[in-house]
Amino acid sequence: MAASCIHLYGALCPQFLASVDTLLFDCDGVLWKGDTPIPGAVQLINRLQERGKRVFFLTNNSTKSRQMYGEKLQGLGFQARPEQVYGTAPCAALYLRQEAKLRGSVYLIGGAALRGELGAQGIVCSGSSPGPELTPGPGPMQAWAAEPLDPAVGAVLIGFDEHFTYMKLCRAARYLRDPSCIFLATNADTLLPLEGGGVPGTGCLVKAVEAATNRTAHVIGKPNAFMFDCMVKEHGIDPSRTVMVGDRLDTDIVMGYNCGLRTILTLTGISKLEEAMAYLESDSPDHHKLVPSYYVGSVADLLSALD
Amino acid sequence: MAASCIHLYGALCPQFLASVDTLLFDCDGVLWKGDTPIPGAVQLINRLQERGKRVFFLTNNSTKSRQMYGEKLQGLGFQARPEQVYGTAPCAALYLRQEAKLRGSVYLIGGAALRGELGAQGIVCSGSSPGPELTPGPGPMQAWAAEPLDPAVGAVLIGFDEHFTYMKLCRAARYLRDPSCIFLATNADTLLPLEGGGVPGTGCLVKAVEAATNRTAHVIGKPNAFMFDCMVKEHGIDPSRTVMVGDRLDTDIVMGYNCGLRTILTLTGISKLEEAMAYLESDSPDHHKLVPSYYVGSVADLLSALD
Repeated sequence: MAASCIHLYGALCPQFLASVDTLLFDCDGVLWKGDTPIPGAVQLINRLQERGKRVFFLTNNSTKSRQMYGEKLQGLGFQARPEQVYGTAPCAALYLRQEAKLRGSVYLIGGAALRGELGAQGIVCSGSSPGPELTPGPGPMQAWAAEPLDPAVGAVLIGFDEHFTYMKLCRAARYLRDPSCIFLATNADTLLPLEGGGVPGTGCLVKAVEAATNRTAHVIGKPNAFMFDCMVKEHGIDPSRTVMVGDRLDTDIVMGYNCGLRTILTLTGISKLEEAMAYLESDSPDHHKLVPSYYVGSVADLLSALD
Repeated sequence: MAASCIHLYGALCPQFLASVDTLLFDCDGVLWKGDTPIPGAVQLINRLQERGKRVFFLTNNSTKSRQMYGEKLQGLGFQARPEQVYGTAPCAALYLRQEAKLRGSVYLIGGAALRGELGAQGIVCSGSSPGPELTPGPGPMQAWAAEPLDPAVGAVLIGFDEHFTYMKLCRAARYLRDPSCIFLATNADTLLPLEGGGVPGTGCLVKAVEAATNRTAHVIGKPNAFMFDCMVKEHGIDPSRTVMVGDRLDTDIVMGYNCGLRTILTLTGISKLEEAMAYLESDSPDHHKLVPSYYVGSVADLLSALD
């Protein structure tokens, strides 16, 4: 899509909405902040669906299952079923089963939701937190390098893991020394934004394992297209009549670009309008991927078109 | 020094040794492997000193104090005093005290030796492994981002830490959000070579913290010059009459280049002669930093010059 960064408001809104059948929403910073909905977001999502628009929710967060995300949305008042949620946890499991045709099990750095989504695809995994390798064994360093590995493991999957330890890093690196072992990450975000400045994200753990192995993880989450590809397969979506709405240029907007979608940046989250404008004015074609088609102050700005 | 990669043997050896007063040796892969000396290495080190040469030992390993390294050398039969050992643990403490003029304490990701070397410089540190932050607190993620930080902390230091955890990463990142907080790493090696293929090195932990903070650590160890600078200051060494002997092109040989020293690659460790030759033939000036002045099959090849 051509880079433009047009302010979407007033009479442009109904005209724009008439041109789309499907709207994809990032969640945190777009529909809610923490546990508080963005004012007007609930009404927007519900009215869009009443008017026959299809709505999907896309998240890089790997700590919640589809079911858990569906419950969070419903709890906040959004009309949403788990099937409308595309998260990196279920999509990572789908990737391993359908795309990578994984035989064998997964060495998992990640939490219970990720383990559950793998299980739902019939994938056995080991190493889920807090695993037995939380602390190093009593022997010398040489013993860690020689610990027996599970020969059934055919993939290493990294998601968010607050129980990440050196010994998990060590074991993941040892599995990945086999070049046929799949190296997958739910997402590459290095920061989880929270009140008080945020905490390190999954991307930091991925960097540690990449450094230890001299390999690059295949990443499921935005800005990559895989979650959208899953959606197209399951729901027959037409990219030319679909828009991606997000608050981050480097994940949401680039994903839209990668999938051939129009995009809307909403200014209630991380990225600022000045950043988008700077990319728009840049001479580098790479920077144009970061420019949204449109921007809004808040998703609530679209409500007027639905009255 | 001009890149050359000349085979140092036969009549060239006594001629070369006459041109140096001081020899710097990397240890693992050069003088020993694990706990076994390279054949001839003990005799070489001892005869060099009998002939009036000055010998120093340089290691990126942060898990041993000067005292511990001295004892290991002596235990294997090398004539060596702790003052001849330059490791990243004591040099990191020196850097904080003398160069960075640290006021305040250190948030340490690292082990007992590093904590001890900091203590020897009168530097208080917190967070040494296995610290109380080994496992996440019971509260939600938001609580980790809001945990009180120690206002006395003025630096984050990362060394090898087999008790590294997500919560240490989180805390380090939160201290480093203050741009005046010093960000120091003992070394950037991503692999600790061991029988069986090795385990992840300190550099992997550094990458995780760098990703979380969007900052770059200042690195004490090879290939940087700081350990040599300490040596020059304490012992008045003349770089033009000094040689660095090592088994790794990217650390030992580049450090020699950075310090204006002649270098010898020994082929008993990690780097291969073919790699050095490929860098020699490369058109990139950056690659010439990786080319040793000389190479030997083993440090024992120098013994003939001392008979």
